[in-house]
Amino acid sequence: MRVLAWSCALVVGGWAFSATAVEGMWQPAQLPTIAKDLKQHGLALHPAKLSQLTEHPMGAIVSLGGCTASFVSPQGLVVTNHHCAYGALQYNSTAGKNLIEQGFLAPSLADELPGSPDMRVFVTEEIRDVTGLVNDKLSDGMEPLARQQAIESAKKALVAACETPGYRCDVYTFHGGFSYQLIKQLEIKDVRLVYAPSEAIGKFGGDIDNWMWPRHTGDFSYLRAYVSPDGKSASFDKANVPYRPKQVLKVNPKGLEEGDFVMVTGYPGRTNRYRLAQEVENAVDWQYPTQIQVYEDYLAIIDEAAKANPEVGVKYANLVASLNNYLKNFQGQIEGLRRANAVAVKTGQEQALAAWLKSGKAGQAKRLDGSLQALQAQLADTQATRERDLAMSLLQRASLLSSAIRLNRLALERTKQDAERESGFQSRDEGRIKDALMQLDRRFDPGVDQRFLAYALSRYVKLPQAQRLAALDTWLAGASTPAAIADKVASLYAGTGLGDAKTRLAYFEGKGEVQGDSMMRLAKAMQPDLLRLEQAEKAREGALAVLRPRYMEAVMAFKASQHLPVYPDANSSLRVTYGNVQGVAPRDAVNYEPFTTAEGIAEKATGKVPFNAPVAELKAIGARDFGTYASPRQRTLPVNFLADLDITGGNSGSPALDKNAELVGLAFDGNWESVSGDWLFNPKLNRSIQVDVRYMLWVMDKLDHADRLLEEMGVAKQ
Amino acid sequence: MRVLAWSCALVVGGWAFSATAVEGMWQPAQLPTIAKDLKQHGLALHPAKLSQLTEHPMGAIVSLGGCTASFVSPQGLVVTNHHCAYGALQYNSTAGKNLIEQGFLAPSLADELPGSPDMRVFVTEEIRDVTGLVNDKLSDGMEPLARQQAIESAKKALVAACETPGYRCDVYTFHGGFSYQLIKQLEIKDVRLVYAPSEAIGKFGGDIDNWMWPRHTGDFSYLRAYVSPDGKSASFDKANVPYRPKQVLKVNPKGLEEGDFVMVTGYPGRTNRYRLAQEVENAVDWQYPTQIQVYEDYLAIIDEAAKANPEVGVKYANLVASLNNYLKNFQGQIEGLRRANAVAVKTGQEQALAAWLKSGKAGQAKRLDGSLQALQAQLADTQATRERDLAMSLLQRASLLSSAIRLNRLALERTKQDAERESGFQSRDEGRIKDALMQLDRRFDPGVDQRFLAYALSRYVKLPQAQRLAALDTWLAGASTPAAIADKVASLYAGTGLGDAKTRLAYFEGKGEVQGDSMMRLAKAMQPDLLRLEQAEKAREGALAVLRPRYMEAVMAFKASQHLPVYPDANSSLRVTYGNVQGVAPRDAVNYEPFTTAEGIAEKATGKVPFNAPVAELKAIGARDFGTYASPRQRTLPVNFLADLDITGGNSGSPALDKNAELVGLAFDGNWESVSGDWLFNPKLNRSIQVDVRYMLWVMDKLDHADRLLEEMGVAKQ
Repeated sequence: MRVLAWSCALVVGGWAFSATAVEGMWQPAQLPTIAKDLKQHGLALHPAKLSQLTEHPMGAIVSLGGCTASFVSPQGLVVTNHHCAYGALQYNSTAGKNLIEQGFLAPSLADELPGSPDMRVFVTEEIRDVTGLVNDKLSDGMEPLARQQAIESAKKALVAACETPGYRCDVYTFHGGFSYQLIKQLEIKDVRLVYAPSEAIGKFGGDIDNWMWPRHTGDFSYLRAYVSPDGKSASFDKANVPYRPKQVLKVNPKGLEEGDFVMVTGYPGRTNRYRLAQEVENAVDWQYPTQIQVYEDYLAIIDEAAKANPEVGVKYANLVASLNNYLKNFQGQIEGLRRANAVAVKTGQEQALAAWLKSGKAGQAKRLDGSLQALQAQLADTQATRERDLAMSLLQRASLLSSAIRLNRLALERTKQDAERESGFQSRDEGRIKDALMQLDRRFDPGVDQRFLAYALSRYVKLPQAQRLAALDTWLAGASTPAAIADKVASLYAGTGLGDAKTRLAYFEGKGEVQGDSMMRLAKAMQPDLLRLEQAEKAREGALAVLRPRYMEAVMAFKASQHLPVYPDANSSLRVTYGNVQGVAPRDAVNYEPFTTAEGIAEKATGKVPFNAPVAELKAIGARDFGTYASPRQRTLPVNFLADLDITGGNSGSPALDKNAELVGLAFDGNWESVSGDWLFNPKLNRSIQVDVRYMLWVMDKLDHADRLLEEMGVAKQ
Repeated sequence: MRVLAWSCALVVGGWAFSATAVEGMWQPAQLPTIAKDLKQHGLALHPAKLSQLTEHPMGAIVSLGGCTASFVSPQGLVVTNHHCAYGALQYNSTAGKNLIEQGFLAPSLADELPGSPDMRVFVTEEIRDVTGLVNDKLSDGMEPLARQQAIESAKKALVAACETPGYRCDVYTFHGGFSYQLIKQLEIKDVRLVYAPSEAIGKFGGDIDNWMWPRHTGDFSYLRAYVSPDGKSASFDKANVPYRPKQVLKVNPKGLEEGDFVMVTGYPGRTNRYRLAQEVENAVDWQYPTQIQVYEDYLAIIDEAAKANPEVGVKYANLVASLNNYLKNFQGQIEGLRRANAVAVKTGQEQALAAWLKSGKAGQAKRLDGSLQALQAQLADTQATRERDLAMSLLQRASLLSSAIRLNRLALERTKQDAERESGFQSRDEGRIKDALMQLDRRFDPGVDQRFLAYALSRYVKLPQAQRLAALDTWLAGASTPAAIADKVASLYAGTGLGDAKTRLAYFEGKGEVQGDSMMRLAKAMQPDLLRLEQAEKAREGALAVLRPRYMEAVMAFKASQHLPVYPDANSSLRVTYGNVQGVAPRDAVNYEPFTTAEGIAEKATGKVPFNAPVAELKAIGARDFGTYASPRQRTLPVNFLADLDITGGNSGSPALDKNAELVGLAFDGNWESVSGDWLFNPKLNRSIQVDVRYMLWVMDKLDHADRLLEEMGVAKQ
């Protein structure tokens, strides 16, 4: 499951009244309330155990920031997905030694390689409800903007009071602001690369198989958390020692079979399960189709330039891969939401809620009558400017204008006290801003950048007058045809020095002269309008911070009347999802088995990326050299498996646990039908994909001879 | 299953020692010898019945020339695939009335539309073994070329003696010349269009689903055979009356279920089951990959020209569709043959045969020792000039050069007695030649044609000196770089009038002056070399006509020693294949059900071609208005079904018959894994795809209201 990172924010969503027993990304604290269902699905462990964050097994589950991982030895050994350790492999690769391609195995502790400096292991140690503390700062009559600012400052204060050296605190928002939790995590900064199989195993199937089943990817790798000799969080240092986690997962080398209980614990990033029908409709009918159009247009611009000059192709290769990845995802979203009749389903749910609120049965909750309609009105207001919001975000995809806007903003923020500065422009952010400005050249071509800007402007000039920016219109001076826009853009680029890193550095250092540079001058002129839009956006957020929680309160009251618990949308906090190992019937006449097998690797192998299975692996498969890793029931080696678990991006690397909370695999993706699952979970079609522990151990033992790690994890070598 | 028509002949092949009970396109006369197996698979009818050509059911099975069909009413009503009646729909469409899109249903006999003039229904009435009569004309010491000519003239004489007005006779070659059969067919020339569903049903899934499962195509339509009032074959005439067939298939409206016996009778075109390992290797390693390269290069040439001028795109649209269709097929061939390890399988079979021949056990057959080696040597000789043979065929893909070569040849042949003329250039062929010359403009662009010729020449100039043509080299005058070749080609086109239809007509009528036209002059100069190559090719065929039958005799003796019957390769003669309704597991973790259902149509429907299921159909499916056409076991309406039947191109439209030889569907395609089945039948993976009779009747009844036809076929309307 790729973490999607280069997308316009999707201001859209869905919601799951129809929650089955299995659907749900449950907060650990909720689990005792659904203990019966957990037992019925096969959990052997006492469900209350799962709500103890520092106990076994939850104490072993860690976040990597965007991925999940778990401790599997008392020496701080961490297992996660191969794609979650990709950065560490990249960081340690050189022209002559491509660790991504070759894989890596540290023969001893001393050989373990430092990960990139931004790598982290976060261990959740405390979760505290702070809803009351935040709400204390709010009053009923507050203006939306003021309210939003009050929430932000309450959160900042809570974080500041919580954080101590080596710890990170964050306030997480649940149900759109219905409740807040302060989460305290140990932040381990010395994370080292221990072992990863070659890319031919770890990324087998590549982009072609991404989001697909049947899958045969060995998406696993090992890291290790290091701390200072006195056990404190510390940046990389030779003298650091392995961290000794409080809890460690035990490996069950026998794995699971069809029908078995399985759960995944991890840090899912974001879902839209409680969005309204109109938000889903906006996504299906406008947002995704429009994004697809825009991305295809960008790809055409890059393609044309790359044909003329291959170097341009290299500079934009990452962007092209990312855009293509999104295109596939958006197509899946549209396909899935249409197929699920998501808008109709949501509409039906909303009507049921509204009817219940109006009825006598709602009791106390009757006071929430109108909450749905109020939220609908606010969302309609937001959607009215969706074309404008898109055009504004596209303008800032042009790197030079975006740099100019940021430099002007930085200059403005620097006139304030640090604490007063806008988030992202504080002292601690300046290093990151500088890095971005300096590294621009590697992914920038002036010709392409001009066409990106012209493209954004061609959308901008179609906006109604009331949504336009005075300064931009002044600069455009009526240009609206492609040729006229291209002329304006060309002269803009002719008059700017921002294409040069030294010039950008000078502006960053406050030495540049704004009026002498066409791009800086334009950005400066646009600044008042941009600030105004930013304030309006914050006011909208403030309004939603009132309306969404109210609506969610109504939803929860309705569900409570049916004795159903409500799980919150994913928000990167620790969650548990549970279900059973099972296949899926994705479409008419097609049945997918829950397990793929080693034979399937040989079937797919072509010798070419991404199906270049290692020769040694193919040989071992041909010889059926599976040892005791083979499943007696399947009579072969399982590779990946499906389960009806409710996961999303951020869950990558999450341990799959059996009924005793022993490790039986790692979640790493969902099937194609689950792409739209962030909006609407379909228990018949949505499946999580896990790499099977038996395949992991077999690769470690038979192919890569990672005996040291097997021993450390307490797995008997054969 | 598309009939592939624009391909270089594939001089390559495979062979099925490993015949399972089910594999096989059996000659009707062979069926009594495998009666036990037919019974075991579930046939209720006495197997001997199936060997009686003019009895039920075989008397009802007819050929359309390239497709198969069957009589389903005493009034000469014929059922076949939608894609087999495509020409009739096209022929009757006008700008304002697109029958392909709308479908067609004649309200009464009088409304039935004449098919295109070349449409035929062939009813096989007699099959006679003439091996002895052909072999009488041959003697052991004959030179290959003389031998080939003797075979050809023996066949011509047999055909001439057999044909009477209204009948067509042909001598079919079996096992590469081991035996010959004279087949006499009634040739019905007045074939009318009775009914076809709309393309949205008949071609649902289009090119995307072509060769694919799951499939949801209503690939059926109805024609009617007409004869003169006195019952004789006659061209279209208003006064003609429906033909009264001797045999008619009964419809079983209950259809089949999983596991049931099913057989398909029809006219499969061509298979390569007994080709040698080296022929398979040549196909997988050279022929298909090279063709793929060539076709992709052609597509690039057309694409570039079409971008500059859309009219060029229109002219080459059919060619582009055909090339893409081949590309997909060739890819499937390579994939399938590699996956089946076809070369290794064939090699093993050949080694077993060679060992048996050398052993004492071969008895009489021991005299065939060396037959394999002799054939291998001859094939190696053929393969030695494969690049030259390809280049020569590509030269004739350039339409103007090809026309010039043909016009020069026609002039040469016209100097002979008609009976002496080369086949294809006799009096009776002249009309066809003229039509082709006149219709050239519709699919010709001089720019593209020049690039085709330059492309062929660029391959030609890489040939070794010994394989080159003196006249062509003289004309090329050393040109070998792309630029030099393009120059030569440009001046060639500048000096020819063949781009003009009137000029081509003049040459056709013997009025043109050869030396005054650059293209005609070049073709004339090349003629002696081309004739020499043609003679060499005939000599090769003559040699193979000795060696292949000898090898096949060895194969059959070996199989006979194992008490196994041998079916001949498909050669467009009437065959029977039988098996059972069953799904398939095409790859790891994937299981395909044997039936698709109406729900699957709704699932695939997008409203856009080729997934534009009619609104009325979607409505009926949504309402589950399936009447008694639904399968009680499946609780829904079956649409298409799979069986392990051995079919190929030419089988399109063949009736699928149940254990009592009643009609339960029509074969129309194979699954992706069966694309390479022409070389090697894999009973685990190869499946034929049939449209289910219940879907046909449901569409006719509920959607198209073809009550007249249902009644005529004796199907009770609901």
